[in-house]
Amino acid sequence: MERPRHQGMAKNTYMRWRLPLVCLLWEVAMIVLFGVFVRFSPEADAHWEEEKQEMNLTSDIENDFYFRYPSFQDVHVMIFVGFGFLMTFLKRYGFGAVGFNFLLAAFGIQWALLMQGWFHSFKNGKILIGVENLINADFCVGSVCIAFGAILGKTSPIQLLIMTLFQVTLFAVNEYILLNLLHVKDAGGSMTIHTFGAYFGLTVTRILYRPNLEQSKDKQGSVYHSDLFAMIGTLYLWMYWPSFNSAISEHGDAQHRAAINTYCSLAACVLTTMAFSSMLQKKGKLDMVHIQNATLAGGVAVGTSAEMMLTPYGSLIVGFICGIVSTVGYVYLTPFLESRLHIQDTCGIHNLHAMPGLIGGIVGAITAAAATEDVYGKEGFIKAFDFTGTYQTRTPSVQGGFQAAGIVVSVLMAFAGGAIVG
Amino acid sequence: MERPRHQGMAKNTYMRWRLPLVCLLWEVAMIVLFGVFVRFSPEADAHWEEEKQEMNLTSDIENDFYFRYPSFQDVHVMIFVGFGFLMTFLKRYGFGAVGFNFLLAAFGIQWALLMQGWFHSFKNGKILIGVENLINADFCVGSVCIAFGAILGKTSPIQLLIMTLFQVTLFAVNEYILLNLLHVKDAGGSMTIHTFGAYFGLTVTRILYRPNLEQSKDKQGSVYHSDLFAMIGTLYLWMYWPSFNSAISEHGDAQHRAAINTYCSLAACVLTTMAFSSMLQKKGKLDMVHIQNATLAGGVAVGTSAEMMLTPYGSLIVGFICGIVSTVGYVYLTPFLESRLHIQDTCGIHNLHAMPGLIGGIVGAITAAAATEDVYGKEGFIKAFDFTGTYQTRTPSVQGGFQAAGIVVSVLMAFAGGAIVG
Amino acid sequence: MERPRHQGMAKNTYMRWRLPLVCLLWEVAMIVLFGVFVRFSPEADAHWEEEKQEMNLTSDIENDFYFRYPSFQDVHVMIFVGFGFLMTFLKRYGFGAVGFNFLLAAFGIQWALLMQGWFHSFKNGKILIGVENLINADFCVGSVCIAFGAILGKTSPIQLLIMTLFQVTLFAVNEYILLNLLHVKDAGGSMTIHTFGAYFGLTVTRILYRPNLEQSKDKQGSVYHSDLFAMIGTLYLWMYWPSFNSAISEHGDAQHRAAINTYCSLAACVLTTMAFSSMLQKKGKLDMVHIQNATLAGGVAVGTSAEMMLTPYGSLIVGFICGIVSTVGYVYLTPFLESRLHIQDTCGIHNLHAMPGLIGGIVGAITAAAATEDVYGKEGFIKAFDFTGTYQTRTPSVQGGFQAAGIVVSVLMAFAGGAIVG
Repeated sequence: MERPRHQGMAKNTYMRWRLPLVCLLWEVAMIVLFGVFVRFSPEADAHWEEEKQEMNLTSDIENDFYFRYPSFQDVHVMIFVGFGFLMTFLKRYGFGAVGFNFLLAAFGIQWALLMQGWFHSFKNGKILIGVENLINADFCVGSVCIAFGAILGKTSPIQLLIMTLFQVTLFAVNEYILLNLLHVKDAGGSMTIHTFGAYFGLTVTRILYRPNLEQSKDKQGSVYHSDLFAMIGTLYLWMYWPSFNSAISEHGDAQHRAAINTYCSLAACVLTTMAFSSMLQKKGKLDMVHIQNATLAGGVAVGTSAEMMLTPYGSLIVGFICGIVSTVGYVYLTPFLESRLHIQDTCGIHNLHAMPGLIGGIVGAITAAAATEDVYGKEGFIKAFDFTGTYQTRTPSVQGGFQAAGIVVSVLMAFAGGAIVG
Repeated sequence: MERPRHQGMAKNTYMRWRLPLVCLLWEVAMIVLFGVFVRFSPEADAHWEEEKQEMNLTSDIENDFYFRYPSFQDVHVMIFVGFGFLMTFLKRYGFGAVGFNFLLAAFGIQWALLMQGWFHSFKNGKILIGVENLINADFCVGSVCIAFGAILGKTSPIQLLIMTLFQVTLFAVNEYILLNLLHVKDAGGSMTIHTFGAYFGLTVTRILYRPNLEQSKDKQGSVYHSDLFAMIGTLYLWMYWPSFNSAISEHGDAQHRAAINTYCSLAACVLTTMAFSSMLQKKGKLDMVHIQNATLAGGVAVGTSAEMMLTPYGSLIVGFICGIVSTVGYVYLTPFLESRLHIQDTCGIHNLHAMPGLIGGIVGAITAAAATEDVYGKEGFIKAFDFTGTYQTRTPSVQGGFQAAGIVVSVLMAFAGGAIVG
Repeated sequence: MERPRHQGMAKNTYMRWRLPLVCLLWEVAMIVLFGVFVRFSPEADAHWEEEKQEMNLTSDIENDFYFRYPSFQDVHVMIFVGFGFLMTFLKRYGFGAVGFNFLLAAFGIQWALLMQGWFHSFKNGKILIGVENLINADFCVGSVCIAFGAILGKTSPIQLLIMTLFQVTLFAVNEYILLNLLHVKDAGGSMTIHTFGAYFGLTVTRILYRPNLEQSKDKQGSVYHSDLFAMIGTLYLWMYWPSFNSAISEHGDAQHRAAINTYCSLAACVLTTMAFSSMLQKKGKLDMVHIQNATLAGGVAVGTSAEMMLTPYGSLIVGFICGIVSTVGYVYLTPFLESRLHIQDTCGIHNLHAMPGLIGGIVGAITAAAATEDVYGKEGFIKAFDFTGTYQTRTPSVQGGFQAAGIVVSVLMAFAGGAIVG
């Protein structure tokens, strides 16, 4: 049953053997490694029935599953439908974007479960996975999807898989440095996911620079229906971002607060995006690309601080600024990057992830540095920043400093990693 | 990077400065007002750690976030994807519908948080917001999206924003009269959201009547892919309506019951819609517009009564009737409204929201009036209608009367408000 | 307002009266039967306020609603958007697939609530429904949607409704035999939903074989946008499958574990699907149909065993195998079935549901037979397989035998049922 194949999926005959081989070998490797290392976390293991009694839990609803599973599913939709369809606005790469995104994400989550597991959930020689690990694996792959946005249309599936392998590895290392060594807070991943992913992708696309690509600009045109498909991606990312930023926050008020802050920031961001899009275009028309992308910058930029006491008006301010920064970036910075720095940023991830990610890191550092026991309450303060054990004596201003250091580390790791992979 | 722009987004050069100015000024106003008034509710505040102990809560899962957040996300999808894509069936306004819906909803939720906050969550000079406020803000904006359905294609973005500002304000006033002064139950908003929103929009479109619009009927044609996009909107509204009607009901059995009743009503509505659509068309073909819209009437019509003991067969009866009423409305009433009353109802909201909303109000009044302690249980009875404090002595029949009064108030407020805005 | 109608919705004039009559009469029958039989389960009834005190529940969050509602909504999306849009890849049947899927599912869930209610939730002459019944009704209809995939484009809406009526009835009988008489575990329905639904549909399509259909192969062609619409269906099925397999598992660790196992199996399945799709096609291109379908086989194949201690690497192995089996099926088996056995399997459900369903049943039998108290813990072991009451003395190997018997029963019931309906 011969069926039409689309541009973007067309590969040379060479691939016939290489892609299958890589996929099969890697999947076999995954099975072996999972067999050796991966087991269920206590809350997903059948022994939980006994564990529950030891922990004096009276109800099954105390299982972490019920705290996080709805958010997990929202994040899952963001990675596969959100990022996948967002990239369909390019006429020629519509199906390729969705399909390759699917492939790299499905591979990436397996490798991320292992890498993040070794760093964070390793006990007695086993990685114990639960719903929080699934969310973190999706987050990690989200970072790869972001980088994919910069190189869309320039690489073969195999190159993508290799990039995924490296990026996931480096992501886990960077995350370990930030969360464990620097004891930085970054629940929504402004630094670990967005800043890191974006600068990684931009470095790779810089190295892959091919001047003749400039000619084929018409490939980058969009068509009517592509824009509606892309809006599906945009809207799911926009709607579920509160789940993204709250998914792995502490149970209770922190998850609640993170969702509210993100909701506010995103709402403000839509208005300033529309304002600047209309202002900077000839004839005041709105540009689809801005609406599809810059409206999301508000979510990126509260990734670090959403679970803190950023307050709703603080979130509005962050969203306000990011809508402007991101839209202006699309109008002026993307052409500049391409013509002067030879960085072909297909989806404009510098405007949507890199800059808002940096802003998010800075806002997080400031919010942390400004924290007081008065605002958080004595116990809330300790819980919010996990000032226990070794970190018992850390002050907010010191925490702010470490948060700032986290930004620098993420950017440097991204440059270094991107250069190696590229 | 020049990209094609679509009909419906085309604006005159004038707009170049007006839209940006309005968006930016209003967003600044939002930031100032949020800064003065809006803070986190206790369950989203970092002090919750201490509050929990005072309230003797043993688990973080008692946070309202876990009772309502999944429903909130479903409602969120209904407002942004559901209403947005439902309106894409019009060939020329496809992208405009989604984009403008996005703009007005993002602005509307901020203003709704403030307006509803002043009326319902105002404590010691501050509005304390939590996940329930986010749901209510989405509900309020849903009412604006409904009104938008009547005037789609007739207004500029600025006019839309101004309409949003006024409608949200009036919505909050009307809601306050119904819920607080009349002590009416309306968790799914048959009266406050659908009846109010629809008659508001119809009044506005009546005033904006332009005869020459009649000629451009071809603009209203649909194309194949538009219909599939519109079905995305329809299906998400249809699937998530049980969440809509249960989102702000009392914890426990009320939320559970509201979801079941809505599920049943919607299922029945699909069958009668298909039956009448096929019966009233030449050659027995099914009309896309009916399937895309009238199938949803069952959800609207149990908005008030879903959390009551309507029972599953009661819900089937309501859905049965509404599928018929709504489909017949599309076939006979919409052309009549346009030719005789000069009401150009682009999306047919009179059939989907106004009439089913009225039916919903009436069903709610009857269900309330018919309530007995036998059916609800002694405590369940008091909890279901909140017959405490001042309302301790209210009887079901009196409650039924007040419910009926709520319908009248909503319709009058909508007419008055629409006339002023129009 | 004349609007274009699409292929697949075109019906002869005859239908003008038949479809409406059938829909209306059946809906009236539903209302009567619901009126006689269906009431709320205790957790959805207003008496719960008192029940709660009797059962010593301290919190509303103990209501089953909060354990299952998020999963229910995910399943709901899979049935209506997932299955509906998956079938839009066929150029001519795009809208028909979504619309008829909507009709049969809306009817089917009502009849399923009754049929399954009589068998499983019947108390004192009443069927008591709660959120778990809604999920089971959706599951049952899922089985019909699968069968619909085999006969897509060959039947009128009325024939579909009649098929739905019969299949739902048989589904409930088969489910009763498996779950109650054989005491088999099948939370994700590898046997009851997928194997049964697929062989039922295949038997029907065999009987409806029309040779001239072969000529109109061009109807089965796909177009670019159809493929993107179909990917919406694929991705929602893929993303929400962990909810499908965990929706009706026991509270706590079983739901948690089922989600993790399904997640792992699906991820592995994507890689082997891509590998074999690329390998078996000329020039190594990827075939859309494989990506849209075979990637889901991993979810089908852990339907029985996901809630057991299959372990993450066990899930990867199952997904690995099913991606291969399903893709090879599309390439070699579907043409063979059509040319030799005269089975026109429009959507290839033999590859996506029948074979993976069988594998799922077998994996479930093996996993059950291999269970030990050591792996599950003493109490976890009893809870996982419900070895209480009459089944107190059943051993894992006996359970494995009954699981295997369940597969055989499902296949035979499907053949017999399909033959009668066809």
